[in-house]
Amino acid sequence: MPETKASVAAADPPLTRSDVHEAAERLAGRVLRTPVLRSDELDRLAGARLWLKAENLQRGGSFKLRGALLAVERLVAAGCLGVVAQSTGNHAIAVALAAGQLGVPATLVLPRDAAPGKVRRIRQAGAEVLLVGTVLAERVAAVEELRQVRGYDVVDPYQNPDVVAGQGTATAELLDQVRAAGSRLDAVVLPVGGGSAVAGACLATAGEHVAVIAAEPSAVPALTEALRDGEPVNVPVRPTIADGLRPDRIGQLPFDTCRAALTDVLTVEEAEIAESLCLALTHARLLVEPAAATALAAALRLAVAPRWRGRDIGVLLSGGNVEEGLVASLLTEYAGQ
Amino acid sequence: MPETKASVAAADPPLTRSDVHEAAERLAGRVLRTPVLRSDELDRLAGARLWLKAENLQRGGSFKLRGALLAVERLVAAGCLGVVAQSTGNHAIAVALAAGQLGVPATLVLPRDAAPGKVRRIRQAGAEVLLVGTVLAERVAAVEELRQVRGYDVVDPYQNPDVVAGQGTATAELLDQVRAAGSRLDAVVLPVGGGSAVAGACLATAGEHVAVIAAEPSAVPALTEALRDGEPVNVPVRPTIADGLRPDRIGQLPFDTCRAALTDVLTVEEAEIAESLCLALTHARLLVEPAAATALAAALRLAVAPRWRGRDIGVLLSGGNVEEGLVASLLTEYAGQ
Repeated sequence: MPETKASVAAADPPLTRSDVHEAAERLAGRVLRTPVLRSDELDRLAGARLWLKAENLQRGGSFKLRGALLAVERLVAAGCLGVVAQSTGNHAIAVALAAGQLGVPATLVLPRDAAPGKVRRIRQAGAEVLLVGTVLAERVAAVEELRQVRGYDVVDPYQNPDVVAGQGTATAELLDQVRAAGSRLDAVVLPVGGGSAVAGACLATAGEHVAVIAAEPSAVPALTEALRDGEPVNVPVRPTIADGLRPDRIGQLPFDTCRAALTDVLTVEEAEIAESLCLALTHARLLVEPAAATALAAALRLAVAPRWRGRDIGVLLSGGNVEEGLVASLLTEYAGQ
Repeated sequence: MPETKASVAAADPPLTRSDVHEAAERLAGRVLRTPVLRSDELDRLAGARLWLKAENLQRGGSFKLRGALLAVERLVAAGCLGVVAQSTGNHAIAVALAAGQLGVPATLVLPRDAAPGKVRRIRQAGAEVLLVGTVLAERVAAVEELRQVRGYDVVDPYQNPDVVAGQGTATAELLDQVRAAGSRLDAVVLPVGGGSAVAGACLATAGEHVAVIAAEPSAVPALTEALRDGEPVNVPVRPTIADGLRPDRIGQLPFDTCRAALTDVLTVEEAEIAESLCLALTHARLLVEPAAATALAAALRLAVAPRWRGRDIGVLLSGGNVEEGLVASLLTEYAGQ
C-alpha cells in the first residue's frame, strides 16, 4: 500500500479509550444518538438477549459519519483545500456529507461495481465520484494521485485516528444505552471490512469486561487471515453481497488497535447474511445493509456456545444503504421458505 | 352495531387532554419511547420538514400496545376472567401481548383475510385466534357471542376510553420529542382505520395549535363519509393493501372525540401507499406497514398547499407488521421504475 499522508498517523502514539471519549464530546449533538432496539423474536432465535444499535438510522445511513465528521473537521481547521477518500461506499457518503457541511470540495473513489444507491447518495451530497477498479490497492493508488495533483487531503477510512476513534463512539453509546436500560453487555459484535468499527469498539470497551467479536463474510476473511499471519495481508476477493465488507486487506491502524483486545472473529456464509437481512426487516422492522446483517448473523449463532447463552449481546447494525432490487430478491426467496 | 359492555363507555364524560397525560404516566417505562427520525431525502420530496414517529419499532410492531396495555390492565384489576377483541390485526397483537403479560387468557377475532404474519404473532403471544367474515359487523357479532358465552370482557379497539387515551400518548411523545429537538410541530398526520389514533392525537394536541390531519385509503373513506353525513356510516369495502385501515366504519367514540378538532382528512390512492412504503424503507430505513405508509403518503403531498410548505409535519408511522411477500413485490415494482 503506498505511504499516504494519513497513513503516517499509524506511527503516532496508540489510540486509547480517552480518544473515543474526546471524539464523543466533539460529536455531541452533531450525529444522531441512534436508538438501541430489542426484539423478542430475534432473542428467541439467538438464545441470547440482543441489543441492536441502529446505526442504519444514522445520518448518511451508516455509523461512518462519526469518524468522517471528526477527520474532515480537523483537516478543514488546518486549512485543507479539499478532501479525497476511497471507500466501498459508506465512508465515501460520510466524507461527502461532512465536506458539504464544512464547506470543502470532496472527491470519492469507489470500486467500479459499487452499489449504485451509494454512488447516488454521494452525488446528492454534492461530491465528485470516481469509479476505479475493484480492489483496495487500485482505489488507494487513485487517491494518492488525486492528493498529489489537486493538493487535497486524504481521509483514509482505516488509518486516520479521528476515523477510528469516531467509529468507536457508536460502541461507547451502545454501552451507555444498555446501562441506562438497567443491563450490562457481555459482548458486542461488529462487522469487519477495513476494521475501523472493530478497532473503535476495542478502544471503547477497554477496561469494561465486554468481549469484542468481529464478524466477516467467509468470502473475504481479511481479519481472520491477518490474525493468522500476525499482520494485514491481502486476501483473494470472492463475491459477497456484503459490499461494505469487501476490503481485501485489514487496515494497519485498526489491526494494531484491535489485535490484542479482540475476543474472537467469526466468518459468516452468504446465506446467513441474506437470511439475517430478512430477519432484521421482519422482526426489528429495520432495513440494514448486508454488512450489518453480517454482524447480526454472527450474533444469532453466538449462543451455540454455552458461554454466550442467555447473555447480553450488543450488535452494531452498521448501516442501511442497500439496493431495493437486492432486498426484493432476498425477501422473495426468504418469504418463500 | 350491537351494544357491547365497552361501547357504553361512549356515554361517559368526554375524554380530554388530561386523560392522555394520565395514560402517559401509567405507561411510563412499559412501552418503548420510540425514536423520532428525520430524512433529508423525504424532506426534499415533501417540501416540508417531516418528523417520523417510528411506532413500527414499538413492542408488538405498532402503537396499539399503548391503549391495549391500559385497557387490559384496568379490566384485570376489576377481576376479569379473560379478554376478547376484534381487530384487523394490530390491536389484536397488542391485546394478546397485554393479556399474556397480565396473566389472563385472550381470544382475538380477525377477518378471514387477515395478514398471516399478524395471525402468527398473536398465536406466538399465546392467545387464541378466530377468523370471522370480512367486515366489521361480522367480527363485532362474534365478539359479543364470546363475551356472553365465556364471560370474557371486550377490549373494543375504538370505543374503549383507555384505548383512545393510550393511543394519544404516541402523539404526546412526538410533540415532546420535537420540542426537545428545538422545533415545534405545525401539523401531525395520522392514518385512520377505526379512528383511535386520530382521536388520541386530537386529545394530545388540544390547546397546542397543531393541526391534526387524518389520512385514509380512498378505497375505504370511512372518516370522509362520516364527516359528510355527520355520523359514522358504513362504507363499501374495496380492496386496499392497507389491511390495518379496512374498518368500514369509524368508531363512535373516536368520531365524537375528533370531529370538532380535526383540521383535514386526505384520501390516498393505492399507488401512493405502495410508493410511500418503499420510500420509508429506502430513505428512512424503516419497514412500515401500508397503514403507516398511508400517513406518509398524505404528508408527502401536504406541502402542495402553500400553507404547509417548509413547515414541521409529524407523521405517525403507526406500525410495521407487513408480509415479506408484499414488501418484496412492492420493492420489485418500485426499484424497476
